[in-house]
Amino acid sequence: MHALPPHFTAVPLDKSYRLLNHGPTVIVSAQHAGERNAMSAAWACALDFAPPKVTVVLDKATRTRALVEGSGFFALQLPTVPMAALTKAIGTASAATMPDKLERHGVQLFTDPAWPAAPLVSGCAAWLVCQLIPEPHNQQAYDLFIGEVVAAWADDRVFRDGHWQFDTAPAELRTLHYVAGGQFYAIGESVVV
Amino acid sequence: MHALPPHFTAVPLDKSYRLLNHGPTVIVSAQHAGERNAMSAAWACALDFAPPKVTVVLDKATRTRALVEGSGFFALQLPTVPMAALTKAIGTASAATMPDKLERHGVQLFTDPAWPAAPLVSGCAAWLVCQLIPEPHNQQAYDLFIGEVVAAWADDRVFRDGHWQFDTAPAELRTLHYVAGGQFYAIGESVVV
Repeated sequence: MHALPPHFTAVPLDKSYRLLNHGPTVIVSAQHAGERNAMSAAWACALDFAPPKVTVVLDKATRTRALVEGSGFFALQLPTVPMAALTKAIGTASAATMPDKLERHGVQLFTDPAWPAAPLVSGCAAWLVCQLIPEPHNQQAYDLFIGEVVAAWADDRVFRDGHWQFDTAPAELRTLHYVAGGQFYAIGESVVV
Repeated sequence: MHALPPHFTAVPLDKSYRLLNHGPTVIVSAQHAGERNAMSAAWACALDFAPPKVTVVLDKATRTRALVEGSGFFALQLPTVPMAALTKAIGTASAATMPDKLERHGVQLFTDPAWPAAPLVSGCAAWLVCQLIPEPHNQQAYDLFIGEVVAAWADDRVFRDGHWQFDTAPAELRTLHYVAGGQFYAIGESVVV
């Protein structure tokens, strides 16, 4: 495990929905019984403001899903432009068939001391720790998982004072938005009305 | 009602998830018993590939929700950069207190002849008609609605051959991604790995 990244700064829970509001692709991570894993997911979304909740779709074939079901916790984090190849790779390879997929694709994990059971991925723009709200019908019928956000952080160069600062932050901190076939878009210019 | 917009082109259903994959803010529209309405929503997400499904969060205070519950159908569409003020306005004002909110904010509706019960908003980059999959617990406990995509179209200048073409399309066709407080981001540059 690695040290906390520089600029890793707490985000108030009542502002945490703003980390997901613009529709970024996420990396979902979890650990259970000594096993850690992480996978990419384009289908994550805010669900509520207070307490903040999120949805995320986790296919039955993924190892990460088993760890979420086992531990009752998961983390969502927002990969940045330089992480595009890593993000595609860990959304394609499965730990079920490639047990060392994290090492092989250069994924570095760390934990916040207050949340040692939530493995977090270095290099991201923001991180949310979520406690699973068990909804067996949704999980079985739709692969749809609901979590309550219990902790959140962001790189304070790109999110601070409750707002994204993409226009002034280093360009490599822009979030990724996946389409298909290895094609992402970075988030773009600010539009204020 | 207005004529079909130029460039309004069918998208195969198996590619329709790509319209939402990059996390755009949407406008949700519906009609029932002669009443039409539309509201903005940042919390919409793809849920499945085949048949394609989506989730969208609709607060109990909205008129649009009542129309969805009444008709069993809704449409999602992706507003573009020139529509930012309109998008903010119809996400704030409610038809419950401003019955003429669509006219007042310049929302122009049209319908595809094959889906006359789905009012669609002019000026958007893409449109999806969805049939509600009733899930009373989700709707009541989480304001979470699930729909199956039954028809989809895009402006073929910005989405064709199953892919977004933001890099070559007119800049005013970029999608909007809402944060809070009237602040959006436009989708940005392509990142291919």
